[in-house]
Amino acid sequence: MSAAAKARRSDPGLEIVAYERSGYVSYGSCGFPYAIKGEIARVEDVVVRTPERFAKQGITALVRHEVLEIDPAGGTVLVRNLNSGTEFRDRWDALVLTTGGAASRPPFPGVNLPGIFTLRTVEDALAIQQWIVEHRPTRGAIIGGGYIGLEMAEALDAHGVQLTLVERLPQVLPNLDAEMASHVQAELERQGVELRLDQPVEGFGGDERVREVVAGGQRIPADIVILAVGVKPNVELARAAGIALGPTGAVAVDDHQRTNLPSIWAAGDVAEALHRVTGRPAWVPLGTTANKQGRVAGENVAGGDARFAGIVGTAVVKVFDLEAASSGLSEAKARIGGYNVESVSATASSRAHYMPGHQPIHVKLVYESGSRRLLGGQLVGIEGVAKRIDIIAAALHQGWTVDELAELDLSYAPPFSPVWDPILVAANLARREG
Amino acid sequence: MSAAAKARRSDPGLEIVAYERSGYVSYGSCGFPYAIKGEIARVEDVVVRTPERFAKQGITALVRHEVLEIDPAGGTVLVRNLNSGTEFRDRWDALVLTTGGAASRPPFPGVNLPGIFTLRTVEDALAIQQWIVEHRPTRGAIIGGGYIGLEMAEALDAHGVQLTLVERLPQVLPNLDAEMASHVQAELERQGVELRLDQPVEGFGGDERVREVVAGGQRIPADIVILAVGVKPNVELARAAGIALGPTGAVAVDDHQRTNLPSIWAAGDVAEALHRVTGRPAWVPLGTTANKQGRVAGENVAGGDARFAGIVGTAVVKVFDLEAASSGLSEAKARIGGYNVESVSATASSRAHYMPGHQPIHVKLVYESGSRRLLGGQLVGIEGVAKRIDIIAAALHQGWTVDELAELDLSYAPPFSPVWDPILVAANLARREG
Repeated sequence: MSAAAKARRSDPGLEIVAYERSGYVSYGSCGFPYAIKGEIARVEDVVVRTPERFAKQGITALVRHEVLEIDPAGGTVLVRNLNSGTEFRDRWDALVLTTGGAASRPPFPGVNLPGIFTLRTVEDALAIQQWIVEHRPTRGAIIGGGYIGLEMAEALDAHGVQLTLVERLPQVLPNLDAEMASHVQAELERQGVELRLDQPVEGFGGDERVREVVAGGQRIPADIVILAVGVKPNVELARAAGIALGPTGAVAVDDHQRTNLPSIWAAGDVAEALHRVTGRPAWVPLGTTANKQGRVAGENVAGGDARFAGIVGTAVVKVFDLEAASSGLSEAKARIGGYNVESVSATASSRAHYMPGHQPIHVKLVYESGSRRLLGGQLVGIEGVAKRIDIIAAALHQGWTVDELAELDLSYAPPFSPVWDPILVAANLARREG
Repeated sequence: MSAAAKARRSDPGLEIVAYERSGYVSYGSCGFPYAIKGEIARVEDVVVRTPERFAKQGITALVRHEVLEIDPAGGTVLVRNLNSGTEFRDRWDALVLTTGGAASRPPFPGVNLPGIFTLRTVEDALAIQQWIVEHRPTRGAIIGGGYIGLEMAEALDAHGVQLTLVERLPQVLPNLDAEMASHVQAELERQGVELRLDQPVEGFGGDERVREVVAGGQRIPADIVILAVGVKPNVELARAAGIALGPTGAVAVDDHQRTNLPSIWAAGDVAEALHRVTGRPAWVPLGTTANKQGRVAGENVAGGDARFAGIVGTAVVKVFDLEAASSGLSEAKARIGGYNVESVSATASSRAHYMPGHQPIHVKLVYESGSRRLLGGQLVGIEGVAKRIDIIAAALHQGWTVDELAELDLSYAPPFSPVWDPILVAANLARREG
């Protein structure tokens, strides 16, 4: 919808139609855990603009309309109205593919038992809410220790659900290195979440609904299960239409969001993005990137010459009282990527040491030996993490060395930072070791 | 003392002596308002390291020892022990001048009445604390609407002092443009501080102690007055020794913190710094810069080749419930500096729009017409301001355009930011207008 809105602003003469399979457009799915937790009054509050609002801008947004087929040669789409069941063809001069991603649902035995949920759409969030109201679950399991899994742990905990988190890897948050993730794991345990790391799920048991998770040979009772084991790009339409996929399995795009086919652009979670640290295409499905790519595609559809600069893979998550953030590559991922890696770690205070309420912030910086180019950074702490990571994001965006990072004139006042910001403490450590 | 500590780490063989006129070394004077407010238990808690601690590192820190004269040719200093009154000469091979700055105390009639305080040293802070305890002031005046004035307003307000703030300029916080400062002024008034802007102080009245401030032809009752009308570099020793001052009136230094005289370095509030936005020397006396310059001087004294990269003039202040931050040049200062200036302003949310507790953040970006180079940024809001300004600081450090700023891959999660960070909202606005 950001592509549609930008195209409309760029060219008031365009006829713009958006087809959406689900019942909602233009929503911030990242808000669902907070709606389920109860911090947001209604799931629908995460909707930014309704089809009625878009109509006033001259954009026709048709929900519950599934595009079944793209015909690039004929310049048409085949659409099914999911309410009436009727099908029709619509003509286009330019097409922006923004089919997004879908939650993975691996074929575990029993995975389709009622009470096992993925979380991606408004409908998913409403179904989880309804299940909580109707079944008042007391035991729950989170499958997957990524962002959604951890946010949903906080959300279900708020409903008094006793939780077990099952993760097939030896740590949560795979974008963090293990020792940084350990701070997050400690917070989860402090909050009463039982961790089962390094344990692949084997299946689910139950009768008319889920009753248990089987993992690592053990049975874990659960009246509700959140399956948060990853996301996949919705590339079926693209593949069938001959739109090329990239090495990540998502749709390949250039910096104008063009696909390999003329007059077809792609943006958002269905598409790849240039990772500025590696210089290679990456698939990091996040709302920020989706919005930026959408604008670029929308502007270009309207005859513009917009360019998407790429990503550095910045992300932050709130895990109960903790904030965990990363940008660029972790040490582990940098090594896998073939970089010759050095790293420094520091723990420094979120405020001046004498200020009440100061909290430790754990910082890790990863950089390349020799060139000393910053490859990534990670921050974990109770406060002051979320926007501090953006300093590292800015450095990565421009390919700075860790020494240049140490030079920054960062803000300081006792309530907000020590005189040496935690990032500068870590960067200075790298300088001393270098 | 950061120069001393760095020199010690760099060369364990050096004999290092630090002479300090006051009774304390190595303290964070920015913490004083919070000590006076009562958030910090004792004023002395802001001391980072005592002379005893330095002694263990092999650094002799002599407090209450005033250097009266530097003899560059002979390589000596003349020192007075303020406890005993005795004077002696000490020899040096290398000298680092770190005499800092002093609070301005203009010769207003009555300025020396008891109850009128500047705030710069531990002794100042202790004197203010003692005055509050002994005299229980009910009416107070803050002279000057800079950082210290505003922080002291919050501190005295916490003691139930009814405050009037007198500022000779038409706004507080001169690093902000007037419309951004107006948010700060509204917060001060909301907190019950009476503002007298555009009113130069004419003098003070009283008997054995201050009773009133005279400003704008009116008498303002006051049992305590904080005189926070600026800071001056302590350049008397330098000037007498033939150390060259720069255009700002502070000591001129190169990027190695060298002065014009051989074997004499200068660092901290007594010295200038290269302003990376203007490319010219600036005098922005802040603890962060002082610490960085100190390290550079210390490393070079020990035979190193360290370089100070310069500043962009980043600062943040907490004013009651508000955070106000700036980096680079305001629009007004950029115009005075001769730049052809454009600016954009936006107000965006500190968190996702559907999250409880979200607060508006006011953003202003200033950039050069034509080149579109970012010249400065300002942020004011209840939360999420202090470290967000560092994104702008990073952009200014490298001389980015406002369009490059708009490309950044900034962190996003609903509790910490909208999907379009307020800084990106403003930068996109510049892009659209450009």
